[in-house]
Amino acid sequence: MKIAFQGELGAYSEQALRVYFGTEEEAVPLPHLEDVFEAVESGKVDRCIVPVENSSAGSIYRTYDLLSEHPLNIIGEQYLKINHCLLALPDVSRDQLKKVYSHSQALDQSRAFLSQLTIEEVPFYDTAGSAAWIAQEGNPELAAVASSLAAEHYNLQLMAENIQTYKHNTTRFLVLSKEAVKPQGHCKTSMVFVSKHIPAALYKCLGGFATNNINLSKLESRPTQTGMGRYRFYLDCEGHVDDPALEFALSELEFFTSSLRILGSYPIGYIPE
Amino acid sequence: MKIAFQGELGAYSEQALRVYFGTEEEAVPLPHLEDVFEAVESGKVDRCIVPVENSSAGSIYRTYDLLSEHPLNIIGEQYLKINHCLLALPDVSRDQLKKVYSHSQALDQSRAFLSQLTIEEVPFYDTAGSAAWIAQEGNPELAAVASSLAAEHYNLQLMAENIQTYKHNTTRFLVLSKEAVKPQGHCKTSMVFVSKHIPAALYKCLGGFATNNINLSKLESRPTQTGMGRYRFYLDCEGHVDDPALEFALSELEFFTSSLRILGSYPIGYIPE
Repeated sequence: MKIAFQGELGAYSEQALRVYFGTEEEAVPLPHLEDVFEAVESGKVDRCIVPVENSSAGSIYRTYDLLSEHPLNIIGEQYLKINHCLLALPDVSRDQLKKVYSHSQALDQSRAFLSQLTIEEVPFYDTAGSAAWIAQEGNPELAAVASSLAAEHYNLQLMAENIQTYKHNTTRFLVLSKEAVKPQGHCKTSMVFVSKHIPAALYKCLGGFATNNINLSKLESRPTQTGMGRYRFYLDCEGHVDDPALEFALSELEFFTSSLRILGSYPIGYIPE
Repeated sequence: MKIAFQGELGAYSEQALRVYFGTEEEAVPLPHLEDVFEAVESGKVDRCIVPVENSSAGSIYRTYDLLSEHPLNIIGEQYLKINHCLLALPDVSRDQLKKVYSHSQALDQSRAFLSQLTIEEVPFYDTAGSAAWIAQEGNPELAAVASSLAAEHYNLQLMAENIQTYKHNTTRFLVLSKEAVKPQGHCKTSMVFVSKHIPAALYKCLGGFATNNINLSKLESRPTQTGMGRYRFYLDCEGHVDDPALEFALSELEFFTSSLRILGSYPIGYIPE
């Protein structure tokens, strides 16, 4: 099977792909998130894996926008703990390092560790890209903050692991496919809806879930340009779209929404400690 | 008054600062968001302005984290339409351009325009930083995607304005102060709470707002590591914390939450079309 992801080899998306699919499948790196969605829609690849939210950076709306524009189904989710590593050329020691390159978010997240090294931080456009770059430069004074997978891809030395200040930095990825896949086991269902312009709209939208004992695992309003009183919501709840309780809840929800799209029912992923 | 913002001169945060405070106040650029919060808390500056959500990229959790860690008050909000511009050295023409530098998000958001130019896109760590960099390089083949304010700061030519594909790209900024400021006019109140671990917790939390006719303008759950059934929520609603209807709603909300913090009541900002 071919599975697309956004970024360079060694990106955290590739790491999530490896955890979800194993190492036998073909991982296809593509430069932009749009390309990843199009590759699945056109049949160039069988699946893709895309980031949808991070415990410190929040929801990735671009992914939701592309989910709206492309008729793909969510067939799975993968939580990945983001373990930033300090990478350098082989046989280099810590006191040789003068500059560290990475995405500004990764540098921010690793500041407590990096400040002990008295090393200049240089923001770069991408974590895996910074690893590729220092490997190409061949300069023993340069380091990068990236995944351990990037160290493997670019033959770099893993000088330190788990260097992020807040240890619980987790990204949730979605696995997408053109065709729906019948899920097994305990499921979650994702949907997007716009509530009608009525008083207490959201409260009414949630009534069907509350009275049918359906747990919500995510609820998020999206800033709209149309002003107060109207919202677009992203909602994840427990259960499969064919479960009778969820069917009841959804028919009630539909009454209070001007649009409702089910994005998929899929097995609940394990959230790492 | 001294007002801190994160980034380099010409950042969109500085543009928001200028719209909110005018051009008379002293803008203080600081490299990291933490520095910005600390500058207000320590009294080094009087106010700060920080991005909190973007219509295409979503909420900025880092800002919410720092709001939790620092005892600052939200005293205002400013919506800014993000107008990406193509900048180059003075007297350069479009067909001379070979490479365009910017933050990868800004390049993504301007792709439809950039693809007409047959120009190589080079991701950079920051929009304003890319403008500063091409000005410093002095190479007529280089362009940057950044704000019009960056063109002013770095004496660059504004070759094209409003080049983003989706015209409605708006960022919401918060204005923070150590002391609460008594707001005037129609207000909004922001809060963060964790619901109790009880069935239909969120539905119950929202009941007080629904029955007291209080409109919500934002509601967002934050992924927690503690599993299903417990949520941290960010909620914005209309009204001032001293309004009797909101007082009723908040006392009801408190009953269903294990923690509740009011972040501030402040005048509602104008959302640009």
